[in-house]
Amino acid sequence: MAYQAAVVGASGYTGAELLRILAGHPDIAVTTATADTHAGAPVAGLYPSLARAYPALTLDPLEPAALDGLDLVFLALPHGESQRLAPDLLGRVAHVVDLGADFRLPAAAYEQWYGEPHRAPQLLPAFAFGLPELFRARITPETSVAAPGCYPTAAALALAPLLAGGVAEPSGVVVHAASGVSGRGRGLSAPSLFSEANETVAPYGLLTHRHTGEIEWALSEVHGAPVTVLFTPHLVPMTRGLLASCYARPATAGLTTQRLVDLYREFYAGEPFVTVLDEPPTTKATLGSNAAHLTVRFDDRTGSILAFGALDNLGKGAAGQAVQAANLLLGLPEATGLPALGLQP
Amino acid sequence: MAYQAAVVGASGYTGAELLRILAGHPDIAVTTATADTHAGAPVAGLYPSLARAYPALTLDPLEPAALDGLDLVFLALPHGESQRLAPDLLGRVAHVVDLGADFRLPAAAYEQWYGEPHRAPQLLPAFAFGLPELFRARITPETSVAAPGCYPTAAALALAPLLAGGVAEPSGVVVHAASGVSGRGRGLSAPSLFSEANETVAPYGLLTHRHTGEIEWALSEVHGAPVTVLFTPHLVPMTRGLLASCYARPATAGLTTQRLVDLYREFYAGEPFVTVLDEPPTTKATLGSNAAHLTVRFDDRTGSILAFGALDNLGKGAAGQAVQAANLLLGLPEATGLPALGLQP
Amino acid sequence: MAYQAAVVGASGYTGAELLRILAGHPDIAVTTATADTHAGAPVAGLYPSLARAYPALTLDPLEPAALDGLDLVFLALPHGESQRLAPDLLGRVAHVVDLGADFRLPAAAYEQWYGEPHRAPQLLPAFAFGLPELFRARITPETSVAAPGCYPTAAALALAPLLAGGVAEPSGVVVHAASGVSGRGRGLSAPSLFSEANETVAPYGLLTHRHTGEIEWALSEVHGAPVTVLFTPHLVPMTRGLLASCYARPATAGLTTQRLVDLYREFYAGEPFVTVLDEPPTTKATLGSNAAHLTVRFDDRTGSILAFGALDNLGKGAAGQAVQAANLLLGLPEATGLPALGLQP
Amino acid sequence: MAYQAAVVGASGYTGAELLRILAGHPDIAVTTATADTHAGAPVAGLYPSLARAYPALTLDPLEPAALDGLDLVFLALPHGESQRLAPDLLGRVAHVVDLGADFRLPAAAYEQWYGEPHRAPQLLPAFAFGLPELFRARITPETSVAAPGCYPTAAALALAPLLAGGVAEPSGVVVHAASGVSGRGRGLSAPSLFSEANETVAPYGLLTHRHTGEIEWALSEVHGAPVTVLFTPHLVPMTRGLLASCYARPATAGLTTQRLVDLYREFYAGEPFVTVLDEPPTTKATLGSNAAHLTVRFDDRTGSILAFGALDNLGKGAAGQAVQAANLLLGLPEATGLPALGLQP
Repeated sequence: MAYQAAVVGASGYTGAELLRILAGHPDIAVTTATADTHAGAPVAGLYPSLARAYPALTLDPLEPAALDGLDLVFLALPHGESQRLAPDLLGRVAHVVDLGADFRLPAAAYEQWYGEPHRAPQLLPAFAFGLPELFRARITPETSVAAPGCYPTAAALALAPLLAGGVAEPSGVVVHAASGVSGRGRGLSAPSLFSEANETVAPYGLLTHRHTGEIEWALSEVHGAPVTVLFTPHLVPMTRGLLASCYARPATAGLTTQRLVDLYREFYAGEPFVTVLDEPPTTKATLGSNAAHLTVRFDDRTGSILAFGALDNLGKGAAGQAVQAANLLLGLPEATGLPALGLQP
Repeated sequence: MAYQAAVVGASGYTGAELLRILAGHPDIAVTTATADTHAGAPVAGLYPSLARAYPALTLDPLEPAALDGLDLVFLALPHGESQRLAPDLLGRVAHVVDLGADFRLPAAAYEQWYGEPHRAPQLLPAFAFGLPELFRARITPETSVAAPGCYPTAAALALAPLLAGGVAEPSGVVVHAASGVSGRGRGLSAPSLFSEANETVAPYGLLTHRHTGEIEWALSEVHGAPVTVLFTPHLVPMTRGLLASCYARPATAGLTTQRLVDLYREFYAGEPFVTVLDEPPTTKATLGSNAAHLTVRFDDRTGSILAFGALDNLGKGAAGQAVQAANLLLGLPEATGLPALGLQP
Repeated sequence: MAYQAAVVGASGYTGAELLRILAGHPDIAVTTATADTHAGAPVAGLYPSLARAYPALTLDPLEPAALDGLDLVFLALPHGESQRLAPDLLGRVAHVVDLGADFRLPAAAYEQWYGEPHRAPQLLPAFAFGLPELFRARITPETSVAAPGCYPTAAALALAPLLAGGVAEPSGVVVHAASGVSGRGRGLSAPSLFSEANETVAPYGLLTHRHTGEIEWALSEVHGAPVTVLFTPHLVPMTRGLLASCYARPATAGLTTQRLVDLYREFYAGEPFVTVLDEPPTTKATLGSNAAHLTVRFDDRTGSILAFGALDNLGKGAAGQAVQAANLLLGLPEATGLPALGLQP
Repeated sequence: MAYQAAVVGASGYTGAELLRILAGHPDIAVTTATADTHAGAPVAGLYPSLARAYPALTLDPLEPAALDGLDLVFLALPHGESQRLAPDLLGRVAHVVDLGADFRLPAAAYEQWYGEPHRAPQLLPAFAFGLPELFRARITPETSVAAPGCYPTAAALALAPLLAGGVAEPSGVVVHAASGVSGRGRGLSAPSLFSEANETVAPYGLLTHRHTGEIEWALSEVHGAPVTVLFTPHLVPMTRGLLASCYARPATAGLTTQRLVDLYREFYAGEPFVTVLDEPPTTKATLGSNAAHLTVRFDDRTGSILAFGALDNLGKGAAGQAVQAANLLLGLPEATGLPALGLQP
């Protein structure tokens, strides 16, 4: 019999993608979906794509007591809301996967990047950073999971082999990223309008984007010492997809592109969702899937390492990764129910 | 010395396009721009594209007295607002071009399609329908102008030669149209979001879209008797551009494609902005210009006439056409200051 | 044990989509992929999205003898090539699904629309028109299948309930369609370039598009008497997706939108891939899936019926439908291995 | 009377944009347009957008003698062809502006980046690097002009104030750029197909893109000593537009964002086409114009300078810049005939 799950915040794009993936999961059944702003609406009305799988599912207002006894709850909420909800929720359900930013950082780093103290710091140790490829051992049936954001996932996967092995310097790292517009969510704002976002490239969040903290935290954990990163996100005119183009300085001599590619292949050997390509990755090849595509180059001329990570910001960058972590929480094979192939073209 | 003009409603896309076109107009100078929702903001902040032309222009709140004595006022306001403003405004300024829907239809037709009585029916006779190619003689320095919408402009230009000449039946006309998303304006709504409008074709306003009334009115005037039209608009994933694909039944025998193309060339001979092509028109060739591209076909096999009209919904479909009409109001050469060439590619 | 299959013409978009779908099919395994123009290339090089599923699959040159004994062969070839191949192939393999145009029409209709005589008319009776929703009974383990094109699938599904029931007149039918650019395939041509196809709507194939013959044939079969259709395709700037907007005249009195929607729901009751919506369908909701979304309206004002069909041109419009038909050939449950949910957003 | 000009290579996107801009130039008239691959075709057939301006202009095969006595010739040819043509051409016409790569680099640098010796090194001194904002004094009526490429223009404008003033280190410079697909030209190739380029971000030319040489050359000239750059271009799904996001290390203490912005404003004071913004620039605001939008940031946390340059790759990145340089060659006011405002939205 399938585990019973809820998607809290199911009207947003991440919530909808969770519903899509879980519809094909053999061992998890969604019994509840909540969304305060669209409470009462049928899921199939907001997302006709989901009509076949959820013909009768209606969005409920969020009521923690209504989740009592569920095996699994996914939280796909705006920043800050999981902190308020978690203290009441954790005891009611068996497992929680939070897709928001609330439980990803230590309290001090949280306050640094979000400009306000954490509301539930006592719960932070209960959450594992839900990036299985780098922190698989920390995700156990006893933990909750804080699934990382789309930018940190791409950047950390692209840079981890360099920093884990001491191949790159931990300072002077540059992460330059391009994201599809769905990364901004379904909220109404001028930069999310088609006529504003189409046919343009728009840098934003210069110097201070909050995902910087997550990228630095994850890489510092991998490196075993502090890593500093200059992170610059850009919006590009596509719905889904995220590419992190990363620059680092070598910490060792004798690097070549081939040695780096070999290092990456070894580092990610056996991973079901990470593929190291010879050619530069493109986001399109990961569309709709939980795949991450990487490559790496060494530029002898300028003495620089160049690493790329491509993924679907709603897949491996959000809902796919959350389901991957949930599989670990439930003791299921990690790849269960997850689409591994992108939609190309 | 240049005529002094105001753009009322300058924060929207039509207002911004008016500012762009007027920046290149040798005889009209914009001295005032208003926008209630962005009052106080510099135009160059909302539209960095306009920074060079309007480095110091700030959006004012709308105050009719502040427009006193202007030579020309363009109204680019949401539906219903021109009706409230016009009675106070008309005596204060020399010429008014309204780009909204308020003064395009007779009172009865207005009520039929907009579901409420007109607030200023006494002013309707003062407004000429601002489609110069079909109603040039009505646009005189003594009139105000109600510039037609983007869909009616494309459909009326594409079908007028058929109905003016009695070549097509006045019933059974079908107008199937595809519009870029900027046609929805800059207002915040879910269907205008990039992630909703991208990579999809979305029919909307089935059977009841309000532009039906304008299309029927314009063609009925041209035909000299009532014309009925089934109009079905679709959103397509592009910022600008509008294609009307029109179907009509022949009212005469002996039609051929060549005769129809010749008829169109004769009908629009001398027009500076209408080009009749041999090949099917595409919207891209009109991007950013005041051009309308047409072609026509006769299908002997099914006994149908097929007529196409392509334009830029913000150009010939809105701001360009308004400036074209303003040139007539001011007694200037009709093409003054108007871009005639599209941006291709 | 899985059935062994080949994809002939695997370098094109339809071939790649077949490989993607079949990678998730529990009962069919692709053992061979051919592509003359890219023979020798690894599938994963052309389509990195497929690297995980086909790490070692290389494109072979087409050699019929190499297909001997296969359970199933999909032909995804340019027009005309299946005719040359089929006589040699049919005896070598258990089942053939042709995704090209060669075996969809009777010989006379083929010659009318393709302008040349059919090369293998003796084989035409062996092929069933592979649109299961309308011709399921004809698709048996003894037949081969000619899977219909994307436009005919959308148009026939959208109009069949009207013509099967005598609700609409068989003349005066208009099919106005918009397709994503992948419908043109992967061949190199100027209209397929991004800079030509982006930000524009482009009608093409006016009056003479070859899919007209297929649409008319399928609807005539459903109607039991000849149906004539004026078909006008348009390219719109998206990769995948196809919308058919169809106009027909009522053949009976007393129609209402509700009665038509009810008729459609009844007509397609139990179909796993056809959903009749209340709201207008959009192509996006079907992206990457085998779904077709329909709705219908009756316009009392103009006496017209308006019917819409949306699908993914590479999914239900090509590869998905071919796999659906293959399931019937193999005696498998019809929905086996087919994605039913679109990728939204 | 207007100067008489030819556009050699008029069938490509740069050629078409030259024709569009020159149609609005009061002092230059295009009398000849050549294009070997489309010789005999009317310009208006390839680009219906140009039909109004060039109703009778037909593409000629290239015949140097036919250009005798012209005041101005623009060369918009594939790499390598200007070298073959120039020796014969220079004496026949008064002024030449080459938009290709052939005369931009010294002979040694040319050979380094293009992998073959230059065919006409003796002509290199006759060509000035046509980036007026940085090299205006070199562009005189006696010189020919080699207009720089789109990437070097954006990168050099974004970085020049840092290197001219010794504010940034000349090593460790990173130029990360995103370009619209029209930058690849109108040639037929798989990566230029809509279905390949849409909905994806694709890095390419890693480590070895030829524009690296131009960027380094221009910045070295500005700096007065060698500058090395790691340049990484990316294709993004838009037709036009180019953003260079540049990273550099400070060479002086005490930097702040405000000081850098002030430095940029001073450096480009009086420039008609360069605007230094407070907010991050977007490519859209420059669409169809000769504008370049810049901004700059200092990140105290990581000790990095971040500089951005946005432009239209066919405008300031190609045809616009060429016309700007031509104005200098002809002794006309530099901004004559050039569109200064982008098309937004």
